[in-house]
Amino acid sequence: MSRKLMVGVAQLGPIARSESRAEVVVRMIRLLTEAHAKGCKFVTFPELALTTFFPRWFFEDEEELNFFYEKEMPNDATKPLFDKAAELGVGFYLGYAELSDDEEGKSHKYNTSILVDDKGQIVSKYRKIHLPGHTENEPWRPFQHLEKRYFEPGDMGFGSCDFMGGKVGMALCNDRRWPETYRVMALQGAEMIVLGYNTPMHYPPVPQHDHLQGFHNHLVMQSAAYQNGCWIVACAKAGPEEGCDLLGESCIIAPTGEIVAQAKTVGDELIFAECDFEQTREIKEHIFNFDLHRRPDEYKIISQPKVVAD
Amino acid sequence: MSRKLMVGVAQLGPIARSESRAEVVVRMIRLLTEAHAKGCKFVTFPELALTTFFPRWFFEDEEELNFFYEKEMPNDATKPLFDKAAELGVGFYLGYAELSDDEEGKSHKYNTSILVDDKGQIVSKYRKIHLPGHTENEPWRPFQHLEKRYFEPGDMGFGSCDFMGGKVGMALCNDRRWPETYRVMALQGAEMIVLGYNTPMHYPPVPQHDHLQGFHNHLVMQSAAYQNGCWIVACAKAGPEEGCDLLGESCIIAPTGEIVAQAKTVGDELIFAECDFEQTREIKEHIFNFDLHRRPDEYKIISQPKVVAD
Repeated sequence: MSRKLMVGVAQLGPIARSESRAEVVVRMIRLLTEAHAKGCKFVTFPELALTTFFPRWFFEDEEELNFFYEKEMPNDATKPLFDKAAELGVGFYLGYAELSDDEEGKSHKYNTSILVDDKGQIVSKYRKIHLPGHTENEPWRPFQHLEKRYFEPGDMGFGSCDFMGGKVGMALCNDRRWPETYRVMALQGAEMIVLGYNTPMHYPPVPQHDHLQGFHNHLVMQSAAYQNGCWIVACAKAGPEEGCDLLGESCIIAPTGEIVAQAKTVGDELIFAECDFEQTREIKEHIFNFDLHRRPDEYKIISQPKVVAD
Repeated sequence: MSRKLMVGVAQLGPIARSESRAEVVVRMIRLLTEAHAKGCKFVTFPELALTTFFPRWFFEDEEELNFFYEKEMPNDATKPLFDKAAELGVGFYLGYAELSDDEEGKSHKYNTSILVDDKGQIVSKYRKIHLPGHTENEPWRPFQHLEKRYFEPGDMGFGSCDFMGGKVGMALCNDRRWPETYRVMALQGAEMIVLGYNTPMHYPPVPQHDHLQGFHNHLVMQSAAYQNGCWIVACAKAGPEEGCDLLGESCIIAPTGEIVAQAKTVGDELIFAECDFEQTREIKEHIFNFDLHRRPDEYKIISQPKVVAD
């Protein structure tokens, strides 16, 4: 028995600040169409896929900042993508900056992703939990990383949903570095974890590790795939974007931890692989059989509230 | 500023069932002496280092099984190792099967490791928490893996202690596959995690993954080193032992996840590296700054009691 899904990863090259959402969506539709021609039923786009990676700049003007957020989804700019997906019968994962009003009319900003089914309907939403970077402008840096300033931590938890024959969970960028991200979803049955990322090649606080960015990117995802018996589907926004080099190396990772498809450019590029959800059982029912082998009584400190040294 | 420790890993080749503990200790002393000559102040030996890996056999006779356990430590067979360590001023990590009586006189069996300081004194003990394998004899297997039958789960938790200038924690073999192992220790400040292993190259339930044993061994430890900003020091019992091939690839891994020393044989072999405890800060204070970036409220399911499907 098998439950196979042909999965595409639509890596995007750089997006200029001057580039409109409509122009980006044209690029995305091109990749979606290519994916469909290759037999893909599901395509992953990057984190914050509709604009340049704006947290690299400090904005004093709230209006200037707000330009980068979506107030509804789909909207005029993204509707052609949803329509094309429905026309082709291809689902997708999309990351974007979300501006939403709560019931009291208060605005909230999240770094968000959605799963869209093959009818063009949003079936699941995730708001990024691990926000990296810093809160204040730090002019010593060659570029900022102000996700902690521009987004609230996600309020929807890590979950997974029934999607295209399997249980699929979502994460975003820095989430992928934390083993807890995958474990929380795998404990809820996730068989595939889909994520987008924008990862600068240069990490200003510890530049001596810059040459390890590619190694670390794959290391955390390959180990997580194996340790949770999950497929991992990871899509970069890549290449030289507004003076900041972004890591590529988008990939599809099997539940054995093996990379079965990998981008070889830092531009717009489609990769794809046939992912069998049933293959997760080779790991989940044996070496990492959670019911047989986990020892949660010993893990209590992991979920205890933080004790920040004074 | 630096806090450097020259660390040796004394990989052991196969130990025959007919080999006496005294003979094994001679081999260990040879490696300890070589390590001292190379400038090492601390040497790691494998899991269950004093005998062959006996959980590969089903014993009906309790006395026959009990032969493999140590009732005290040090004992007559191991005292020469402790004496030599004190003479040379070299500390060590040692794994062995422990048989101990509790206050009511009831016997308990653990898969145990100890840290011994440069005076030959035991300063810390750990009892293996993640016991792999199975409980009953399964004759269809080419060899058994009866750790769940022959040991109780450890009752001392995962900790770390001040040792030779740093905070050092211990684990054993299968523990290393679980990200929780390292996280629990790192949250308590561990800077170096030391472990021994006996890993058969053949995994009878899923033989199609046998070619990945070396990859998985390094993958789980390299990711854990990086994700916790810890040194990981890992020592195999390796090679063809009583008809069962054991993985070698003992290694020392930096807090970046990079392997800085690795065994190249499956026999008795010393490897070593200078480990700077201060290097952990490059990770712990930045990308994996737990106080700034962890979100324990989202991790609750990880430490919740197991819900085993009925």
